[in-house]
Amino acid sequence: MTATMRPAAEAAPAVPESLGRTRDAVQPALRAAVDRLDETSRAISAYHLGWTDADGNPVSGNGGKAVRSALAVLSALAAGAPAETGVPGAVAVELVHNFSLVHDDLMDGDTERRHRPTVWALWGAPAAILTGDAMLALAQEVVLDSGSAHAIPAARLLSETTRRLIHGQVLDVQFEQRDDVTLPECVTMAGGKTGALLSGSAAIGAVLAGAPAETVDALAVFGEEVGLAFQLVDDVLGIWGDAAVTGKPVYSDLRARKKSLPVTYAITHGGATGRELAEWLAGEETGDETELARVAALVASAGGRDWATAEAARRVETAERALSAIPAGPRDELIGIARFIVHREA
Amino acid sequence: MTATMRPAAEAAPAVPESLGRTRDAVQPALRAAVDRLDETSRAISAYHLGWTDADGNPVSGNGGKAVRSALAVLSALAAGAPAETGVPGAVAVELVHNFSLVHDDLMDGDTERRHRPTVWALWGAPAAILTGDAMLALAQEVVLDSGSAHAIPAARLLSETTRRLIHGQVLDVQFEQRDDVTLPECVTMAGGKTGALLSGSAAIGAVLAGAPAETVDALAVFGEEVGLAFQLVDDVLGIWGDAAVTGKPVYSDLRARKKSLPVTYAITHGGATGRELAEWLAGEETGDETELARVAALVASAGGRDWATAEAARRVETAERALSAIPAGPRDELIGIARFIVHREA
Repeated sequence: MTATMRPAAEAAPAVPESLGRTRDAVQPALRAAVDRLDETSRAISAYHLGWTDADGNPVSGNGGKAVRSALAVLSALAAGAPAETGVPGAVAVELVHNFSLVHDDLMDGDTERRHRPTVWALWGAPAAILTGDAMLALAQEVVLDSGSAHAIPAARLLSETTRRLIHGQVLDVQFEQRDDVTLPECVTMAGGKTGALLSGSAAIGAVLAGAPAETVDALAVFGEEVGLAFQLVDDVLGIWGDAAVTGKPVYSDLRARKKSLPVTYAITHGGATGRELAEWLAGEETGDETELARVAALVASAGGRDWATAEAARRVETAERALSAIPAGPRDELIGIARFIVHREA
Repeated sequence: MTATMRPAAEAAPAVPESLGRTRDAVQPALRAAVDRLDETSRAISAYHLGWTDADGNPVSGNGGKAVRSALAVLSALAAGAPAETGVPGAVAVELVHNFSLVHDDLMDGDTERRHRPTVWALWGAPAAILTGDAMLALAQEVVLDSGSAHAIPAARLLSETTRRLIHGQVLDVQFEQRDDVTLPECVTMAGGKTGALLSGSAAIGAVLAGAPAETVDALAVFGEEVGLAFQLVDDVLGIWGDAAVTGKPVYSDLRARKKSLPVTYAITHGGATGRELAEWLAGEETGDETELARVAALVASAGGRDWATAEAARRVETAERALSAIPAGPRDELIGIARFIVHREA
């Protein structure tokens, strides 16, 4: 059952069948929720979610993998409830995820997402702020309207999850201005930005089902560890990934001087090599490909690559072990999605 | 019991004693809620709320009138519950109000609020977006943690209120680009930006108390009408207010070409004079004070000033009438706050 980290060059695993199945269960509810937004927020959300083009014409395509809503539905199944019990949670985590994407794209100044112009790039900053705000408020409403006897703890989980996600972004913004970020701080940031919402997604279906605390906690740990494993792998690929496979320029994270997990490990645990790396990061030179290759070699020889790879594998193991008491059917599907999430960028 | 609109030059009513009393009840809970935010969001919120200076040093002063939280506490009293029942609602509406101020200041590019630099002006756009987001998520949490048997409908009211507030700002942003805004559209916008949260504030305490629908509805109507009355008076003062009293430059709303309620009435109901006004608004000339005085006279002679003044009085009457079945004590205090809100800028 234990996953091993496959080398980046290996083909990514096939999209798990459960993703398509859960998306079919969640999409109508997500569309019904978005339909409740005011006309403008609705139109912009539909574009952002990949349902329409910028003029509002419907487009084909499925608008992303919706892994978070799949986790929420499987979470209800893991607690012995029907899939429908998890659907309001699935819609809510999808809305929170997209609220954060719309706001983050603005904050980060990113003009493209999935090869399409971002919301702020098309409609301006106020539209991006307000559409994100509306999606966040709507997410709570969907859980409150679920009719579940456990709507309060589910809504509570959603809002705590949202605040951890926001905190992760707060730290990310701050770290750009700092050159003394510790490894635990960096892990906290990644835990907020990536772990929190995957953890909340994996737990919310079980909470809506009224599952016992052990089940909820096990699913939350599973999601959290999968999130951190994904981030570690993503950070490794951001430096050493094959540009043809990742779709990002080679050494993209080094070019951006990103204080990713392997880089932070190398700086803080890599002795003299780590200090040389820290000096380069503090500098201004852009660096050609030869220079970036030299810096990537510094990260590796300071132990950053090996640590991140081993740590990702360890977290996948922890994630899978957390599910030991979950019934085999949903457990296998959750693990299938976990492996897909962790390796999808490979 | 019926309020009459006092002329703008008359002194504003004294601050109702109930505002101080309810603030004393709410402040510790608001501070405890803000304490739960991450360190950065907490520090920025404390500054925005007027508790600290930009370096985090405590400052004296009371950080605003907190009329929304006073309405929420009186709302519980109006339903026959103790003040404490309304406190989580009071904290939540105060957080939603301040979430919207922090985001609106950024969207509007306003660098000052209450004679202090705004959050985005001090810490940048990402900090303003994230602090607002965190306050919004926290607001829900406070209601969900209230322990009230009616937390779900209260949280539901809060999120619907928030979405109306957001919709009001969406329309406000859009109307800047349009020259065909109708009076009903303008009222919808003002209802969202000003009516929604005062309505939600006036109702949420009663919802937390489990009051019957008639009581909740009466309080919601009261808050809504007070909000629109306030906006109408504020719009009149934005054109004809005494700069020494309002603290804003004379004709400030005309200078900004703001499509306020009296201006929209004048354009859409003022015949040839309205068309002359519309042409000026569509133009580019800044206009000296003589020119602005001429435009203000156009608004007045097209009926905008008289309509807004009469409409405000009518809405105050509707607001007060809505409270007929509320016990006399809380009713008189609600009416005292309503008169204070409507006339505070005079």
